[in-house]
Amino acid sequence: MDIHINKNLQSAPEHQDRARMLIACPDGPGIVAAVSRFLHEHGANIVQSDQYTMDPAGGMFFMRVEFDLPELAHKLPELESSFTEVAETFNMEWNIYNTARKKRLAIFVSKEDHCLVELLWQWQAGDLDADIAMVVSNHTDMKEYVESFGIPYHHIPVTADTKPEAERRQLEVIGDDIDVIILARYMQIISPLFIKHYRNRIINIHHSFLPAFVGGKPYAQAYNRGVKIIGATAHYVTEELDGGPIIEQDVQRVSHRDEVAELKRIGRTIERVVLARAVKWHIEDRILVHHNKTVVF
Amino acid sequence: MDIHINKNLQSAPEHQDRARMLIACPDGPGIVAAVSRFLHEHGANIVQSDQYTMDPAGGMFFMRVEFDLPELAHKLPELESSFTEVAETFNMEWNIYNTARKKRLAIFVSKEDHCLVELLWQWQAGDLDADIAMVVSNHTDMKEYVESFGIPYHHIPVTADTKPEAERRQLEVIGDDIDVIILARYMQIISPLFIKHYRNRIINIHHSFLPAFVGGKPYAQAYNRGVKIIGATAHYVTEELDGGPIIEQDVQRVSHRDEVAELKRIGRTIERVVLARAVKWHIEDRILVHHNKTVVF
Amino acid sequence: MDIHINKNLQSAPEHQDRARMLIACPDGPGIVAAVSRFLHEHGANIVQSDQYTMDPAGGMFFMRVEFDLPELAHKLPELESSFTEVAETFNMEWNIYNTARKKRLAIFVSKEDHCLVELLWQWQAGDLDADIAMVVSNHTDMKEYVESFGIPYHHIPVTADTKPEAERRQLEVIGDDIDVIILARYMQIISPLFIKHYRNRIINIHHSFLPAFVGGKPYAQAYNRGVKIIGATAHYVTEELDGGPIIEQDVQRVSHRDEVAELKRIGRTIERVVLARAVKWHIEDRILVHHNKTVVF
Amino acid sequence: MDIHINKNLQSAPEHQDRARMLIACPDGPGIVAAVSRFLHEHGANIVQSDQYTMDPAGGMFFMRVEFDLPELAHKLPELESSFTEVAETFNMEWNIYNTARKKRLAIFVSKEDHCLVELLWQWQAGDLDADIAMVVSNHTDMKEYVESFGIPYHHIPVTADTKPEAERRQLEVIGDDIDVIILARYMQIISPLFIKHYRNRIINIHHSFLPAFVGGKPYAQAYNRGVKIIGATAHYVTEELDGGPIIEQDVQRVSHRDEVAELKRIGRTIERVVLARAVKWHIEDRILVHHNKTVVF
Repeated sequence: MDIHINKNLQSAPEHQDRARMLIACPDGPGIVAAVSRFLHEHGANIVQSDQYTMDPAGGMFFMRVEFDLPELAHKLPELESSFTEVAETFNMEWNIYNTARKKRLAIFVSKEDHCLVELLWQWQAGDLDADIAMVVSNHTDMKEYVESFGIPYHHIPVTADTKPEAERRQLEVIGDDIDVIILARYMQIISPLFIKHYRNRIINIHHSFLPAFVGGKPYAQAYNRGVKIIGATAHYVTEELDGGPIIEQDVQRVSHRDEVAELKRIGRTIERVVLARAVKWHIEDRILVHHNKTVVF
Repeated sequence: MDIHINKNLQSAPEHQDRARMLIACPDGPGIVAAVSRFLHEHGANIVQSDQYTMDPAGGMFFMRVEFDLPELAHKLPELESSFTEVAETFNMEWNIYNTARKKRLAIFVSKEDHCLVELLWQWQAGDLDADIAMVVSNHTDMKEYVESFGIPYHHIPVTADTKPEAERRQLEVIGDDIDVIILARYMQIISPLFIKHYRNRIINIHHSFLPAFVGGKPYAQAYNRGVKIIGATAHYVTEELDGGPIIEQDVQRVSHRDEVAELKRIGRTIERVVLARAVKWHIEDRILVHHNKTVVF
Repeated sequence: MDIHINKNLQSAPEHQDRARMLIACPDGPGIVAAVSRFLHEHGANIVQSDQYTMDPAGGMFFMRVEFDLPELAHKLPELESSFTEVAETFNMEWNIYNTARKKRLAIFVSKEDHCLVELLWQWQAGDLDADIAMVVSNHTDMKEYVESFGIPYHHIPVTADTKPEAERRQLEVIGDDIDVIILARYMQIISPLFIKHYRNRIINIHHSFLPAFVGGKPYAQAYNRGVKIIGATAHYVTEELDGGPIIEQDVQRVSHRDEVAELKRIGRTIERVVLARAVKWHIEDRILVHHNKTVVF
Repeated sequence: MDIHINKNLQSAPEHQDRARMLIACPDGPGIVAAVSRFLHEHGANIVQSDQYTMDPAGGMFFMRVEFDLPELAHKLPELESSFTEVAETFNMEWNIYNTARKKRLAIFVSKEDHCLVELLWQWQAGDLDADIAMVVSNHTDMKEYVESFGIPYHHIPVTADTKPEAERRQLEVIGDDIDVIILARYMQIISPLFIKHYRNRIINIHHSFLPAFVGGKPYAQAYNRGVKIIGATAHYVTEELDGGPIIEQDVQRVSHRDEVAELKRIGRTIERVVLARAVKWHIEDRILVHHNKTVVF
């Protein structure tokens, strides 16, 4: 079906040799110097660099470097291997991502379609630099729509009884090469076992300004509490319900005139904008997680 | 001391004969017609009128009417007495406020001065159409500053032991003609007995986006949770801590770079703006309270 | 094609007998009383009512009343005819809209699809209570997509030479029963003759915070000026380019890091949200135009 | 007079040895490596570092580094002298600022006091890490208030005839050691000659969202244009009226109900918040100017 023109199919040749490096380590003198010298000596040109020290006296240090290196794909294994020495000196956790390799997304959805539609639309417009590898749903509602984009749709029903079995099937269809799972208003709780497989790689959109209104029916809760502002929160999923590291939040003003249905309507736009931003930042390797908080560069 | 020129001392003659009417009653046909006909027949000209029906099928109806009536002060008693008949027909709770009679405020403060300073400054600039009758504090820090405006400052220390006695003294200095009490970062919990005297007439500023971060040290709570937006909430004080009807809220975006001290600094500006708005709306008779929610016209 | 389920096809039965009345007239005593008494005496129940007086001393008065009247469709002609007397007394311009009769929209689009997609999506989600009667475009890009919703797509090419002829054809396909025309990033200037046919009924989205950056390439203009906030403006089209009455505006913060392409990307979300709000308000009869300004109730 | 307790009098000992380095140069490989290596080799520990490249292919590169160096005051001359070599290699414009040396501000004001009051209040609260060396005004209104803080107040009247002479006197009282001039609603146009002395060191607050509503009476202009959002803009003063590099902007939503007086009232809070932010960023050496734009780190 050709009505959906995926502008993403043409890869942008300009950043073919660009990589991103994420580093977290205890703060100390000389880290920036060591990293930038290392990159310079290996022929890389730093395009963008961000640092943050949580607490100058003995806290954690976080860094994100974006650099260009001619023949990156060819040189990357050597670069990574050489960097080990620097990393060990400073006790770093680190990763280098080749931007030419697009991240692969699996989107989980139930019946509410707005977040899924937004992601598909941004992807199609070329604003989401990733591959949407599949959509997984406990319902069939969105099947035809998703498949019209040429994206596989896996319908895996979930009931209280079949939950473990359903998660097994989900892990099976996801396989080995999915980088991040997006819960785009997927209305099932994910088990600790599943979460363990994708630590800091499952992004959920919660339809309230967390930590206000944890749990079910947050718009009804917001209406009953009479708040003057509602919001949405994108966060990584952890074992604690709606308690994982917050990636992004946004809000909008409401009034006494807005009943629950209107709050939901307004909220839908906040949800899709907030989730899309969080996904974009994740696939651009902008997010570092430390304990229960995020550093977003 | 003449450096503080209170522009409020000159009363604005233009709205000498203006009144505001607030009405709450069960919804039903003919209310707006009855009220507007009543006012028209009594020679009043409606300048502004707002209505809201909570639930068209059997819910509550709220109305605020601002009107001009020549020789208002003279005619008001008669008007109120005549209106009783209309009010009884529709089972109304209602009030008429003569705008020429400024509301009298008592501001309670502890050590943090920013909310008090903002209120004094807006009052002095003529933006707060009320009389600040006194400031009450459990500390002496702001005494000289407040008195430089010619405003009485009552220092009433509060300790765990002396609390009931302190509240008795507070009620004593407040006396009989205070319309509204503003807790401008007053860091003491008000007793149910005290609240009873000023039901829906005590406005507090809570330094978080309620219902997130109820209780003490909300900025530290916000920092620990890693929220991306912080806020402040002005609400009427009820027996439930930080649980009263919300009048106004506002927020600002923060990032991982903002430590607790910076959150407090940013928060101070949100707090003073939000509290000042809530106070302004209260003294302009824009707020109706129903159960635990506000209607703000 | 059934993948697009238009939830709008089922009309909501609850508001079958609801109407909206818009009034503009010189201010004077007794208008609200006269209107509300009239409606009450004709058996209507006022559900919502808003007034605004531009200048209490001799200015214009604006009113919007939403009311329920049993058997509305049957009684409306009589009601309108009876109201003439009230209207003449106060020199009113006025209209009554039966909410059961959905407004008919024609959407004009060129190549950029985001505003059109948003309107179609909100319409499909049941958030836009109108009929999208047709899409008109000077390009064929969106033809297949639009037709997949069952909406007619008229491709009318426009060149400098063929402009008058193209507008004639546009007026022809629009015919007699289109209530409002939406320029959803339609990149052609509308002629004064065309505008005359649809005075205050053509809504355009301009991709800047007007009156900043009138004319072409506003994001490039914004980048060059180095603004820290960008925006979008929905307005009625008048003979003056980007100079018509503003309906709605919104903005988002940007930084020096955001180049023109990123400003456009951010702007697309602002544009679609702002345009959708303006269209919603128009079809809910919330907008009154006076000279070059709007009153939005 | 002791009612104003300037918490700024006690210098914070924690950052005694902290400096900030600002760099602008044509982009090229190895800049970050060279700078960070230089600092590391001289015993400095980088606390914070930000970079930005305007256009990766041959554009400008901007960098701000905050570092700690034991015995900074003692070692700074040597450090600066050694850095010359690095700077020449990359053709840098650069500066190093010792944070222990507070910037000295001169605030210019006319009759509107809100921006001045905000700056004084933030300074007094310890939120503005600078010395307010003097206030200069063409009126006497604020004299007593300013002097109550122990700050010299220079009254220099300005008329069309005496302007050049007035500017001479202003430059005279300012003398040689003022770092930045704040126009806190100073309603006189500054001459090109004066501007030349303080290139990118005069900060003005314009009471509109520039470039909308350049020139006089912007709130009246905004009211007449019927905008739905108003704003304020802090910018460096250049020869072009209201045309200098924008530092910060903010906005607030308004409606048709807000007349010019209300727009002014709302605007006053935006103005003071925006100006205070811009001043804070300037004194924290966060702003680099390139042509007519700012990079704010």
